Amino acid sequence: MAKPLRLAVAGVGNNISALLQGIYYYRTLIADGADTNKLPGIRHFKIGDFAIGDIELVAAFDVQPEKIGLPIEKAIFCAPNNYPNLGLDIPHSTTIVHNGVHLADKGVMGQAGVATELRQSEADVLLYSLPTGLQRAADAYAECALEAGVSFVNCTPEAVARNPEHLQRFEERGLSLIGDDLASHMGTSMLHRAILDLLINRGLTLENTYQLNLGGNEDFRNLQNRGESKTVSKRNALARTGLDMNRVHVIPSAGVVPHLQDRKVAYLNVIGRGWANMPISIDLKLEVQDSSNAAGVIIDLIRIAASARRRGLAGFNAAAASFLKSPPHGHLADEQERELAELRRLNAACAQELV
Amino acid sequence: MAKPLRLAVAGVGNNISALLQGIYYYRTLIADGADTNKLPGIRHFKIGDFAIGDIELVAAFDVQPEKIGLPIEKAIFCAPNNYPNLGLDIPHSTTIVHNGVHLADKGVMGQAGVATELRQSEADVLLYSLPTGLQRAADAYAECALEAGVSFVNCTPEAVARNPEHLQRFEERGLSLIGDDLASHMGTSMLHRAILDLLINRGLTLENTYQLNLGGNEDFRNLQNRGESKTVSKRNALARTGLDMNRVHVIPSAGVVPHLQDRKVAYLNVIGRGWANMPISIDLKLEVQDSSNAAGVIIDLIRIAASARRRGLAGFNAAAASFLKSPPHGHLADEQERELAELRRLNAACAQELV
Amino acid sequence: MAKPLRLAVAGVGNNISALLQGIYYYRTLIADGADTNKLPGIRHFKIGDFAIGDIELVAAFDVQPEKIGLPIEKAIFCAPNNYPNLGLDIPHSTTIVHNGVHLADKGVMGQAGVATELRQSEADVLLYSLPTGLQRAADAYAECALEAGVSFVNCTPEAVARNPEHLQRFEERGLSLIGDDLASHMGTSMLHRAILDLLINRGLTLENTYQLNLGGNEDFRNLQNRGESKTVSKRNALARTGLDMNRVHVIPSAGVVPHLQDRKVAYLNVIGRGWANMPISIDLKLEVQDSSNAAGVIIDLIRIAASARRRGLAGFNAAAASFLKSPPHGHLADEQERELAELRRLNAACAQELV
Amino acid sequence: MAKPLRLAVAGVGNNISALLQGIYYYRTLIADGADTNKLPGIRHFKIGDFAIGDIELVAAFDVQPEKIGLPIEKAIFCAPNNYPNLGLDIPHSTTIVHNGVHLADKGVMGQAGVATELRQSEADVLLYSLPTGLQRAADAYAECALEAGVSFVNCTPEAVARNPEHLQRFEERGLSLIGDDLASHMGTSMLHRAILDLLINRGLTLENTYQLNLGGNEDFRNLQNRGESKTVSKRNALARTGLDMNRVHVIPSAGVVPHLQDRKVAYLNVIGRGWANMPISIDLKLEVQDSSNAAGVIIDLIRIAASARRRGLAGFNAAAASFLKSPPHGHLADEQERELAELRRLNAACAQELV
Repeated sequence: MAKPLRLAVAGVGNNISALLQGIYYYRTLIADGADTNKLPGIRHFKIGDFAIGDIELVAAFDVQPEKIGLPIEKAIFCAPNNYPNLGLDIPHSTTIVHNGVHLADKGVMGQAGVATELRQSEADVLLYSLPTGLQRAADAYAECALEAGVSFVNCTPEAVARNPEHLQRFEERGLSLIGDDLASHMGTSMLHRAILDLLINRGLTLENTYQLNLGGNEDFRNLQNRGESKTVSKRNALARTGLDMNRVHVIPSAGVVPHLQDRKVAYLNVIGRGWANMPISIDLKLEVQDSSNAAGVIIDLIRIAASARRRGLAGFNAAAASFLKSPPHGHLADEQERELAELRRLNAACAQELV
Repeated sequence: MAKPLRLAVAGVGNNISALLQGIYYYRTLIADGADTNKLPGIRHFKIGDFAIGDIELVAAFDVQPEKIGLPIEKAIFCAPNNYPNLGLDIPHSTTIVHNGVHLADKGVMGQAGVATELRQSEADVLLYSLPTGLQRAADAYAECALEAGVSFVNCTPEAVARNPEHLQRFEERGLSLIGDDLASHMGTSMLHRAILDLLINRGLTLENTYQLNLGGNEDFRNLQNRGESKTVSKRNALARTGLDMNRVHVIPSAGVVPHLQDRKVAYLNVIGRGWANMPISIDLKLEVQDSSNAAGVIIDLIRIAASARRRGLAGFNAAAASFLKSPPHGHLADEQERELAELRRLNAACAQELV
Repeated sequence: MAKPLRLAVAGVGNNISALLQGIYYYRTLIADGADTNKLPGIRHFKIGDFAIGDIELVAAFDVQPEKIGLPIEKAIFCAPNNYPNLGLDIPHSTTIVHNGVHLADKGVMGQAGVATELRQSEADVLLYSLPTGLQRAADAYAECALEAGVSFVNCTPEAVARNPEHLQRFEERGLSLIGDDLASHMGTSMLHRAILDLLINRGLTLENTYQLNLGGNEDFRNLQNRGESKTVSKRNALARTGLDMNRVHVIPSAGVVPHLQDRKVAYLNVIGRGWANMPISIDLKLEVQDSSNAAGVIIDLIRIAASARRRGLAGFNAAAASFLKSPPHGHLADEQERELAELRRLNAACAQELV
Repeated sequence: MAKPLRLAVAGVGNNISALLQGIYYYRTLIADGADTNKLPGIRHFKIGDFAIGDIELVAAFDVQPEKIGLPIEKAIFCAPNNYPNLGLDIPHSTTIVHNGVHLADKGVMGQAGVATELRQSEADVLLYSLPTGLQRAADAYAECALEAGVSFVNCTPEAVARNPEHLQRFEERGLSLIGDDLASHMGTSMLHRAILDLLINRGLTLENTYQLNLGGNEDFRNLQNRGESKTVSKRNALARTGLDMNRVHVIPSAGVVPHLQDRKVAYLNVIGRGWANMPISIDLKLEVQDSSNAAGVIIDLIRIAASARRRGLAGFNAAAASFLKSPPHGHLADEQERELAELRRLNAACAQELV
C-alpha cells in the first residue's frame, strides 16, 4: 500500500470495534492470498487510493473514563461495547484514546484539546460515531475538524452535512463532509421495502404489514426512549407511490434482549391480497450483527471522503448518497448512476496519478 | 361494456375456477360501486378493449368424464379441483364442458370436434391450461386454434409460442400467440430473487440459501415425479451475475400436504456474510393461493392477446413478456419499458377507435 | 336444558363479546345436530348442571357512556371493543347495560345501585372482567356480589380470591369465589414452558431464550405502561427447577399493532446446547384470538362456580385451579388430579339430583 | 476414573464422530475444572460405574475402504461423514478400523473375523450404528456379540432387542441387549408431540398440522427412497388418544440440502380451533445437529448396558426405554418412574461396591 488513510474517531463504541477488527481480519485474509474480488461482505475492494486494509487509526476520542488512556485495540472491548471479540491478533497500537468533547450546561468543554490532538495526528478523516441525539457534540467535533483541516464523516442522524453552513465551510476549506446517518449495509428497512416494492409492482394490494426490531446493544436501549423520531425515519424509508402508509406499522425497538448483545433481530409480516381478494402472507425473520452493518458502510464512506479530498473535491460527494439515510440533497432518482460515475471518476483520477 | 372478450378454455382445472370466480367477484365489486383503481390484486383495470369483468366464457374442453357435459360454473368445482368456492352467485351458463383432445398411442383423438366447437363459439382466445407435460396435447390445441381462427395463450411450460413454426403460422393467420409458461403473480422465485439481489447489490456475500415449496393440489403431486425440469427452471429464475449457483438449493416440491389444497407454502433460508465475515440470516415463510397466482396473470395475458389481434397485431406481443417464464425471445433488459410502451399503444389504439 | 346459569358481568369488553357470541355459536351448532363431544375449542361440553349453551346473560355493568343503556348484544360491538363480529343472529335481549361502579377520589360511587340491580337479576355468578389494575373496583364489585348473594369469578390479576378476608366472607355466605387471573386457553407462556420443559427434561442446556408479544386491543395498550408487573408474572409462569432464569427474557408487550385488533402474535426463540455443546435453535410464531383465549376458560369457571354453589360447596373450588394464574393456594403438584376428581364430584352430584 | 467402559462400534459414521469428539470435549471441560452438574447437553454426569469421560473406544468395524486401516480419530473425518470437526486435540489411538461384516448374496461374510476381533478387544458393549435398513447385518453383528460375550446396543430401527429369540439368548449369556432405534435427544417428533399434547389437553381442536424435515447427511439421502416406513414410524410417535391422525401430515425428508451437512432443519405448522371456532396457528422452525442428537442418547444407553451387566442384570434394562423408539415391551405409562428407579438401583449397586 502506498500512503494509508489516516483515520480519527470520535466515540469508541461497537462501530469502531467492528471497523478496527474487520480491517485486521481482511488484512490477514489478503496476506494469506485471498482473492481480493471475493472478500466476504465487501462491495468495493478499492476506492480511490485505498484498498480495504489501507487504513490506520491515528486518533481516538471518548468520554468514558474506562476507555480514556487505553490503546485503541484494548478500548474497543470495554463495556458496554459488546461487538464480539474476533480473536485476531491486533498489533499493539500507539494510538491512545483521548478525552473527547464533553457537554456542559452551556456549550461544550475540551474542544480545544481535541482540535490540537487532531491536527497533530495528521488525520485525513474524523469519523463521528457517538450515541444518537447529541447535536451539540456533533457540531463541536465538526468545528474541531474544520480547525484541524480534517474531513468529516457523520454516522449519526444529527444534522451536520445537511446543515448548509457547515457544508459551505468544509467546502471553502477544501475538506470533505459526508453524512448524515448511515444506511445499514443490509437492514430491516431495505428488506421490508424490497418486499413491499415487489408486491406493489406485481399488482397485488397491501392489506397491512408490520416490522419490529430487537437488539441488545446501547442503541436499542436508547431507542426505547427516543422511538418516536426513529419510527418516523423508518416509515419514511418505506414510503413510496402506491403504498397506503396507514397500513404500515413500524416498531423500531420492541424491547432490549440483553443476550442478543450487538446482534439485531427483526420480524416482518406482510399480508397482501391477490386475484379474487385471496390472501398472501409473508413472515420473515432477519438476524444481523448490528455494528458490522454500520462498519460495512463506514469503510466506503471514509475512503470516499479521503480520496475525494486528495483529488481536490471538497464538500459532499455524490458517491456516498446511497450509503446514507439523509444526504444533503436527499435521495435522487438517478442516485445509483451518479454514485457509480463518481466512483469511476475517483478511481480514474487516482490511477492517472500513479503514471 | 362494449363487446366482451370471448374466451375458450382447454382444461377446466383450478386456474379456470379461480379465473371464472374472480371475474364474478370483481363484477360484483364494480356493480357495488368499488373504485376501479383500487380493486384488490389487480394490476390493470383495463387493457385495450377490456375491463376486468368484460370476459365471457364461451367454450370449455376437458377429458375428465365427471366434468364433460356440466355447465362450466358447476364443472369448476369437480374434484380434484380444490380452489375454494367463494360462495358467489354465478349465473347459470349455457357453456357446457365438451370432450377435449385425447392422447392416443400415436397422435391424438378428438381434434376435429374441438376445432368445430371452437369455430362455432366465435371465441377470441383459446386459453391452454392442461396439466404440465403434455406437449402433444398443446400442439393439437394450437392446431385447433389455427383452424378455427382463434388466438392462443399457453399457460404451461410446453413449447408453443417459442416454437418458431407455430409462431409463424399464427402470425400469418393474423392471430395472437402468447406464451410460454406463466410467471406467478407473486411467487417464491421472484421473492427469493428480490432478496438475493438486495444482498448482492449491497455488497454482502452469499454463504448459501435454500428454497422449498409445499402444496396440496395436483400440480404438487405431478412435481413429485417431474421435479428435475422444474428444479432447473426455478434455478434459472434465480441465476444472475455475481451469484454462485453452487450455493443455491431449490426444492420445487418438498411434499404434498393434502389439507393445503390449492394453497402453496414456501420456506426460504438465506445465509450471507457481511463486514468481518459476520453472518446475516433471513428466514421467510410465504403462503399464497396457487391458482389465484395464475389467474392474476392470465387475466392480463388474454386481454393482451385479444386486444392486440383486434388492433391487427399478430403473433407474440411484447406487453406480455414479464408475465411469462419463457417468452419466445427470452427476457430482455428493457422488458418493463417495452411492456409499458406496448400497453400504452394498445390502450391508445383502442381509445381512438371509440371516437 | 333445565335451569340455565344466570350470569351477570362487570365490564362489557372483548371477553364478554367473545363469550356471548360463542354461546350463540355453539347453540346453533348443537341445534344443527353437531356431535356435542366434538365441538371445536371445548374442553367439557357439560360441567355440573350446565351444558355449553345453558347460560343466560341477566345483568351487565360498564362505565363507558356509549355502552350504557344499550342491549347487551349491541353493546359488545361498541369501540374500543374489537373482537370480530361473527355475524350470528343473536336474538334481542332485554338485558341492558347498567351504569357500573365508578372510581372516585376516595372510595367508589354507584355500588348501591349495582348491588340492587344484581339482586333483582337473580344472577348465579358475577363475572368481573374490567381492565387490569383497578383493585378498588374489583373490591367494590365483590362487595356488591356479597350483598346480593351472588358468586364471583375474577378474570383479572387483582387480588380477590387470594384475599383471605374476601374468601372467608364468600364461604360464610355459601357463595363461590373463583380467581384470580385467567390462564389463557392456549397462551404464549404455556407454549414457552412446554418447550423449555422438554429441553430440560431431555438433558439439554438452555443457552438463552426470549418471548415477545404483540397485539392490537386495549390490553396491549395498557401493558405498554404497566409491563413491569406483567413481566414478573410471565417470568413466574416459566420458572421451574433446573431453569436459569437469567437466561430467560420476556417482553409482555413489544408494541401495539392496531390492525391486529383482538388478535395476538407472539414470537419465541430458544437456543439450547446439546451433546458436545452443539447448538439447537427453535423459532416459533403463535397467533391467537386474544379474547377467545379468555372466553374458552371463562366458560368453565362460571359453570364451576354456579354448580359448586348449587351443590352447597362455597368458597374456592379446586376444579378451577389450572384455569387460573394465581389461585388462592397456588398451583399444587397434583392439581390436575384434584381438578378431575372435583369435576367428577360436581357431575356426580348433579346426576344424582336428576333421579 | 476406575475402570473405563470398553466400547466397540459397528459403523464409523457421523454418530461415532459425534460420540468420540464429544467424549474428548467433556474430558477437557472436566480437566479444566467445569462443574460436572452443569455440563452442556448432559442428562446424567454419571450412570452406574461411568462418568461421561470414562469410555474407551477399543474396536471399530466398517466396510468403507477409505476408513479401514485408519486409526479411529482419523476415520471419523472420512467422507461422507460430515459431522463438524470440533478442532479438539484427540490423542492418537491404537484402535484401527477393521473390515466389518459384508452382505453377500446369501448371508454375510466376515462374521468370524469380527467375532475374533471383538473377543480380543475385551469390549463391554458393541454399539450397532450402520445405515438404516440392513437387518441381516444387524443380526450378524448381534451373533458376533453373543459369540464374543459382549453386550449390544442397537441404534437402528432393525429388530434386534424386540426379536424375542435374540433377547432370550443375550439374557441366557448374562449380556445386556438394548434397543431398538434411538429416540433423538431433542427431535422433531417430540417437539411436535409436546405442542399437540398441549393443544388437546387444553381443550382446543386440531384443524390440521404438518411437519417436514430437511438435512444434508447420508440419512436424509437414504430417507428419500425409504420414506414410507419412516413416515409410519413418525406418525406413530405422534398418535395419541383424542388426536385425529387424518389431520396430521408428516414428511420425513422434504429433500436433501447438501450445505446443511449434518445439521437438520424441521418446519412445523399447527392450526387449531379455540372458543367460537377461532383459529390458532403455530409455526415453528427447529435446527439441530443431527448426530449430536444421537450421541446425546447413545452416551446413556451404552453406560446403562455396561453397568447393568456388571451388576448381573442381563437382557433389556428398563432404564433405557425412554431413549428408544421401539423398546421390546413398547412404551409403558409409568416408563419415566421405572427409568428413574432403575437408574437409582444401578447407581446404588455401584456405590455399594466401592465400599
